[in-house]
Amino acid sequence: MQPIQITFKKRPRLKKPILVEGLPGVGLVGRLAAEQLVNELDAQPFAVMRSCYFPPQVIVDDRGEISMFENTFYYWKNKKGKNDLIILMGDHQGLSADSHYEVSEAAVKLAYKYNTKMLYTLGGFGTGRMTKKPRIFGAVTDQKLKKQLEKQGVLFKGGPTFIVGAAGLMLGIGKEYGMKGACLMGETHGAYADPNSAEHVLKVLTNLIKIKISYAGLEKMAKEIDKEFEKIKKAQEKQNKELLRGKELSTMDRMAYFR
Amino acid sequence: MQPIQITFKKRPRLKKPILVEGLPGVGLVGRLAAEQLVNELDAQPFAVMRSCYFPPQVIVDDRGEISMFENTFYYWKNKKGKNDLIILMGDHQGLSADSHYEVSEAAVKLAYKYNTKMLYTLGGFGTGRMTKKPRIFGAVTDQKLKKQLEKQGVLFKGGPTFIVGAAGLMLGIGKEYGMKGACLMGETHGAYADPNSAEHVLKVLTNLIKIKISYAGLEKMAKEIDKEFEKIKKAQEKQNKELLRGKELSTMDRMAYFR
Amino acid sequence: MQPIQITFKKRPRLKKPILVEGLPGVGLVGRLAAEQLVNELDAQPFAVMRSCYFPPQVIVDDRGEISMFENTFYYWKNKKGKNDLIILMGDHQGLSADSHYEVSEAAVKLAYKYNTKMLYTLGGFGTGRMTKKPRIFGAVTDQKLKKQLEKQGVLFKGGPTFIVGAAGLMLGIGKEYGMKGACLMGETHGAYADPNSAEHVLKVLTNLIKIKISYAGLEKMAKEIDKEFEKIKKAQEKQNKELLRGKELSTMDRMAYFR
Amino acid sequence: MQPIQITFKKRPRLKKPILVEGLPGVGLVGRLAAEQLVNELDAQPFAVMRSCYFPPQVIVDDRGEISMFENTFYYWKNKKGKNDLIILMGDHQGLSADSHYEVSEAAVKLAYKYNTKMLYTLGGFGTGRMTKKPRIFGAVTDQKLKKQLEKQGVLFKGGPTFIVGAAGLMLGIGKEYGMKGACLMGETHGAYADPNSAEHVLKVLTNLIKIKISYAGLEKMAKEIDKEFEKIKKAQEKQNKELLRGKELSTMDRMAYFR
Repeated sequence: MQPIQITFKKRPRLKKPILVEGLPGVGLVGRLAAEQLVNELDAQPFAVMRSCYFPPQVIVDDRGEISMFENTFYYWKNKKGKNDLIILMGDHQGLSADSHYEVSEAAVKLAYKYNTKMLYTLGGFGTGRMTKKPRIFGAVTDQKLKKQLEKQGVLFKGGPTFIVGAAGLMLGIGKEYGMKGACLMGETHGAYADPNSAEHVLKVLTNLIKIKISYAGLEKMAKEIDKEFEKIKKAQEKQNKELLRGKELSTMDRMAYFR
Repeated sequence: MQPIQITFKKRPRLKKPILVEGLPGVGLVGRLAAEQLVNELDAQPFAVMRSCYFPPQVIVDDRGEISMFENTFYYWKNKKGKNDLIILMGDHQGLSADSHYEVSEAAVKLAYKYNTKMLYTLGGFGTGRMTKKPRIFGAVTDQKLKKQLEKQGVLFKGGPTFIVGAAGLMLGIGKEYGMKGACLMGETHGAYADPNSAEHVLKVLTNLIKIKISYAGLEKMAKEIDKEFEKIKKAQEKQNKELLRGKELSTMDRMAYFR
Repeated sequence: MQPIQITFKKRPRLKKPILVEGLPGVGLVGRLAAEQLVNELDAQPFAVMRSCYFPPQVIVDDRGEISMFENTFYYWKNKKGKNDLIILMGDHQGLSADSHYEVSEAAVKLAYKYNTKMLYTLGGFGTGRMTKKPRIFGAVTDQKLKKQLEKQGVLFKGGPTFIVGAAGLMLGIGKEYGMKGACLMGETHGAYADPNSAEHVLKVLTNLIKIKISYAGLEKMAKEIDKEFEKIKKAQEKQNKELLRGKELSTMDRMAYFR
Repeated sequence: MQPIQITFKKRPRLKKPILVEGLPGVGLVGRLAAEQLVNELDAQPFAVMRSCYFPPQVIVDDRGEISMFENTFYYWKNKKGKNDLIILMGDHQGLSADSHYEVSEAAVKLAYKYNTKMLYTLGGFGTGRMTKKPRIFGAVTDQKLKKQLEKQGVLFKGGPTFIVGAAGLMLGIGKEYGMKGACLMGETHGAYADPNSAEHVLKVLTNLIKIKISYAGLEKMAKEIDKEFEKIKKAQEKQNKELLRGKELSTMDRMAYFR
């Protein structure tokens, strides 16, 4: 078995495609943004990546049907613009440290064969705080790109000093393959899926690549999550009161509580 | 050394064999079921898998004789039915995450060479509860199989959303090799070997592949384990009473107790 | 770089050599026994194994000179007997699980090329107790060997059910290369180097291979260690008294104490 | 992707170059010393090492530009002396145990092709204590070197018995490639970057290779760090007083405090 297998279902002809990466990461921001993009553009899957670097398990859907962990490449033909899109969306990045490099390089290589010159990686920047108006932080391979991003409100101060995983490595490896690239990171708590942050990231991306789509899917998801948090918040307040009432906790309980 | 070595002792001719997997996993359910099947059918070993992915140790039996960790392929010629059987039973699945993929693919490949079109993987679904009447949950590669399993009482709601290890991966990889497959998972506590759950899984399997065998071995083992649990239960009740009597425990003791 | 490199310094001609393995393991029993054997027989080094599977560090000796981790193969020409010896003694077995298999196979292969038909692996069996008269436990590839070992007082009841590392794997892999083999395990505490246990193991081994050597080196080392233990014991008794005197300890202290 | 890639930007002709290694390690001593050396000599980069063994992330600089983890080889032409220099400075050594061997061997191989006969590795020796006058400890491949080092005040008693990582392995591997080598280790606390220790190491090195440079950069950095420590010390003293005042701490707090 090859450690990474890419199987092509179609061989589309693409016009100077831009690569957009949205694999699962902090707050699922990149993945949620890419998913919305794929759905709204009705982008078509054309290649599937499987790997022994993904978790050693299969997913069971609600009909009881299994599927392996996989990352999928979608394409979208941009009839009005200069650049078609390749969107990488999927289930996982890689378990071991070195597999991150291999997964990222495999994706960049595929785009390279399609003559990709530009790539955007999407992700979250975890701050441990919740916010309704997440800032968008950027990182680039090239100073010229920075100006374009700044026009869209992207910040270059106060963001991360490292970008872990595909969102970072695909830029670095892309550069070696002659691609320019930018990472867009939506501020997010980090411990929860954050469709609101994804929406803000996606708005910047669509402005940059000059397409218009609806964000309704992410907005709906954000509202549902807000409701869940309200419930949890009330439950926690109740629990806190009980704690203050002096109920003694064993060390084990306390440890569980702090986790 | 090849990471996975399969050594053939015989090269049996098999008639459209169905592959049955029963490697050690949750509650040892799959392994116990496969063992009973091998014993009852008097299935014959024909190939042995060894691997550096297994634990770096040898097993010492009660005569002081050592043996390496290995998984064995057994065959059974089904004189009355359409399909012979290949049964994979053994000592281990793989230690590292990626080795699970490799062990699973090696097993599927062997079956593929024998023209296998169908595979069953057997496992446990850990719930943390003990039950005398374990439910059997299923997962399939194909909706048509689902109906056949439902006729045998297999459930497709309330089961796992992921299947870890060979029981899941062999279905996913088998699909890529053109095989249909189903996983049968017996409800089990998860922390103990569960021959009773194995028996229930095996009953479904034998109905599906239309063979009749005795389950006496598993029933006997279940009774022995029940007796052990009675003893442990009594010992724990005694210990709990002492705790309630106010004996102070250090944090270390408590941690050991909760483990 | 090859993961395992074996460099030959000499190419001795050996007469049906028996392989003796003494790599570091539980209580350093095997290593200490092999070292004594090498010293007493004045066995000569002829091949050196280096590997990226060993710890990523070098050893600095008391003259400030560095050396890499390595395992050395020694030979000894047995003028009076039928079998020469190959003794494998060294610094490490392997860090990762799968490297244990590779290190063990590399050693067996070397012996195989010298037409080795028999191998002894030496190790410790950790019981958590200290004893002046350690029992010697055995494990074999072959029931005939068992009788020979039993004549030397080797026990086959009450020992380990698994043998971890080279002492076990070399027997298992050796068997695949057509070698018979036995493991001799000296009872030992497990947390300390145990030259006394090594001496008892070595006495059994030398009886089996019919050679006579002095054990003075191990006896001396055992006495030195005994003296150290007396000191530690007194220090601990003092500490225990302080504890009983009611000095309160924080959880952190207690944890450190139990480690 | 090759696990380790070395890309040449130039192919300088070098005169019997000495290799100096300064990768990040204990107290960043080696890295800081090498950085100062590169800056003062205006050594030029000529080759870059990238590897999937480095952390799976990219670095974002203060202009928002990303770069991959990399180790760089610099050269310096020594017009007055017999030996040019190759200086290896960079971001990382390797994450996994075996990658340390591979990174070290790749670096030694590059120097070997330039006909290097001598190498110095620079590092820190962590003692858990802070000192203004760090001792310099040495380790060598060769007793003759020891005398040269001792003339520079380098100590060979009381230092480490193991040297972990590139500073040790490059000596060991270098020896196999026919190189002599010495490791210079500056005494350091271990938990903090230590430019003062780096300065002392660098003074010994420059004496040994007979060049003169300024150490102003390291001196300035050391002063800045001293100021930071003063602040931290005052904050800690305040905290300790509060503790002594009897404020009760939960186990969790205490654990956090001791970390």
